[in-house]
Amino acid sequence: MKIPEATVLRLSIYSRYLKQLWEKGVTNVSSGEIAEGVNGTSAQVRKDLAYFGEFGTRGVGYKVRILDKQITEILGINNEWEVVIVGAGNLGSALTHYKGFKERRFNIQAVFDNDENKIGSKINDVLVYSITDMDNFIKENDIQIGIVAVPATYAQGVVDILIKAGIKSILNFAPTVISVPEHVEHRSVDLVVNLEVLTYNLVNKK
Amino acid sequence: MKIPEATVLRLSIYSRYLKQLWEKGVTNVSSGEIAEGVNGTSAQVRKDLAYFGEFGTRGVGYKVRILDKQITEILGINNEWEVVIVGAGNLGSALTHYKGFKERRFNIQAVFDNDENKIGSKINDVLVYSITDMDNFIKENDIQIGIVAVPATYAQGVVDILIKAGIKSILNFAPTVISVPEHVEHRSVDLVVNLEVLTYNLVNKK
Repeated sequence: MKIPEATVLRLSIYSRYLKQLWEKGVTNVSSGEIAEGVNGTSAQVRKDLAYFGEFGTRGVGYKVRILDKQITEILGINNEWEVVIVGAGNLGSALTHYKGFKERRFNIQAVFDNDENKIGSKINDVLVYSITDMDNFIKENDIQIGIVAVPATYAQGVVDILIKAGIKSILNFAPTVISVPEHVEHRSVDLVVNLEVLTYNLVNKK
Repeated sequence: MKIPEATVLRLSIYSRYLKQLWEKGVTNVSSGEIAEGVNGTSAQVRKDLAYFGEFGTRGVGYKVRILDKQITEILGINNEWEVVIVGAGNLGSALTHYKGFKERRFNIQAVFDNDENKIGSKINDVLVYSITDMDNFIKENDIQIGIVAVPATYAQGVVDILIKAGIKSILNFAPTVISVPEHVEHRSVDLVVNLEVLTYNLVNKK
């Protein structure tokens, strides 16, 4: 059964909210309460969770800890993931500092750049290596995810090196379309496209 | 007629590709060539463009300049947009440096922060102001879009100030769910959620 991507996105958000509840000492939660916490509807929450079987008990709701554990397994984040970031510019640096990755056990193992002045320095305790070391580093450290934060003109070249080194999953921030073979998962976070969806909605509002 | 958001996202990408073609001196393009340039299918390209009427000529294709002009109007980016960024940390700073915004005529007019050490400094020629000046600045400079790049715990507070000052459109980078009234457009770019869609796809791959 094919799970809609929108559902997967929401599961990730539910999981973060469940962790917040658990940290506050909440042990049980209804679909309505989850919905309220994530600006959704309880029908949507129930529908999303129904893809994966029966988690809750009618009238009682869900056990926060168990539900989060199950979602975490579904999302594949019950294990840690080893990540490299390519590009030590402003965006790469911001991503290396980003606390949300570590919280969800995405471990940034290295940053790569081609700028001699940056190679050997540290960003948030992560060492910056030369791009020429990338292939070796990925193979030797069993890196699974590559984050691309280089200018658009360099993006495909970087992607090609990542894939040749065995990376199976790429998150691309360069504002360009990248080509990957079918066995490689990739997602682009396009900052301009996100702004343009906003302006479209603004100008086409009734 | 409700245009699917996925279509709006692709229109933004088509537009960027058409600009690249035009800069290379290409004046005519087929849906198949657009599809190739953006990793899509020609059927999808034709379907997306069909929402907005008849742009091309059968057997001849599209005039690059005219098609881009029409998409640009649809997306609401034929005019400039005035933008502020809230948060002068790593992410806010990276966003202020981000070249893609200016290219598409999103003008970053100010950055706001509550750190006394940052207020009065410049990031990529943009002045950092105190959060306490935000309401005034937005009203006086007719700012339309607010980009939120503060830690999750501050996000809703910042959003409330933006909305009170009259902002109609918010792009949120804080890894939390924000509440906005119905008349305000908002979009969240959630970096962790994007990674978790990747890991979901990896672990659930056949």
